[in-house]
Amino acid sequence: MKAVIPFKKASAKSRLSPVLTREEREEFVELMLNQVIDTLKEAGIETIDILSPSMYGLENMKKANVLLDKDDLNEALNRYLEQAEEPVIIFMADLPLLSPKHVKEIISTKKDICIVPGKGGGTNALFIRDPSNYRVRYYGSSFLTHCSIAADSGQNFEIYDSFFAGTDIDEPEDLVELLIHGRGPAKDYIDRKFKIEVSRGRVGLIPL
Amino acid sequence: MKAVIPFKKASAKSRLSPVLTREEREEFVELMLNQVIDTLKEAGIETIDILSPSMYGLENMKKANVLLDKDDLNEALNRYLEQAEEPVIIFMADLPLLSPKHVKEIISTKKDICIVPGKGGGTNALFIRDPSNYRVRYYGSSFLTHCSIAADSGQNFEIYDSFFAGTDIDEPEDLVELLIHGRGPAKDYIDRKFKIEVSRGRVGLIPL
Repeated sequence: MKAVIPFKKASAKSRLSPVLTREEREEFVELMLNQVIDTLKEAGIETIDILSPSMYGLENMKKANVLLDKDDLNEALNRYLEQAEEPVIIFMADLPLLSPKHVKEIISTKKDICIVPGKGGGTNALFIRDPSNYRVRYYGSSFLTHCSIAADSGQNFEIYDSFFAGTDIDEPEDLVELLIHGRGPAKDYIDRKFKIEVSRGRVGLIPL
Repeated sequence: MKAVIPFKKASAKSRLSPVLTREEREEFVELMLNQVIDTLKEAGIETIDILSPSMYGLENMKKANVLLDKDDLNEALNRYLEQAEEPVIIFMADLPLLSPKHVKEIISTKKDICIVPGKGGGTNALFIRDPSNYRVRYYGSSFLTHCSIAADSGQNFEIYDSFFAGTDIDEPEDLVELLIHGRGPAKDYIDRKFKIEVSRGRVGLIPL
């Protein structure tokens, strides 16, 4: 089994631009990527590939293999799956609340496919036992799409239900989850820039 | 063990007012309440109390006991806990993705307290083994508060990690989760009013 993490540093996380500059967002995604890699390693995953359209931010990457593919996310991942000769787990790079326990549970699924839903219809992680028999389609309501692709091709699937693995960081409100539930370098970075704003409704974000 | 669900129908869910009228919101919260009650019953919980400041919307409630308390949520719940003589589990009424499996797992905790985090720092469910020894403080970052209250009083606690039990319905974007992951009357109601809007980012909501 091997893991692959799609990653792009340049102008990353544009939906965080109301609260973080481009430079900050680029620094932040690199911290999150490293945290995800450390989590996978701690869970015992030995082969970790980073799939990126550019070497930007990955020049000194020692912890994982860097594979360059300038194509769109889906095309690049599907080419990766075609060539894979063992089960593959795809993790998004923006999951700072992911723990080794989550990773171990996800990869120990008994099903052909295990899908970890993210906020707003996304897919935060996707375990594929037989990569020659599955193609991904990220963006939009990819969670539903990935369930359908499994069902339509006769592969059984499990939905892995986790608040923390389900928290991908795209919008300012997601930083609140990181401040409340997180730890590690990505949390420390956001901790230096924001504090939580407590009101009667959901907690918000105040710049420091 | 008994369950209590705080509930208020009048002008409920004001943060959904950009997409639902007051009448619709009141109808919707009643559907969600009934769905939560059915889920608890299916999980085998026999005593279910609804704690409400008014009988409005509860005139014909047969499935659960209605307790009136005009006080604030926290005061009413703490009075309830003071009088309880057995373990109590508090569920919010806006959890339409909650399943009997979640409920069974939460109440089978080995710890003194089990906390189910909700979005934005909230507490979606709270199991309290010894209610005479615990007081709640909802609103704001209640998740952190409820962890502290347990720790400060020497009670050990578990955090129950679930995307679905963690999805409370307060904001329009939460309706997207219901459309994607839900089933039952609350989902059917929202299905008749909206469809999901698929773009490159998170899925949005389009009125029908």
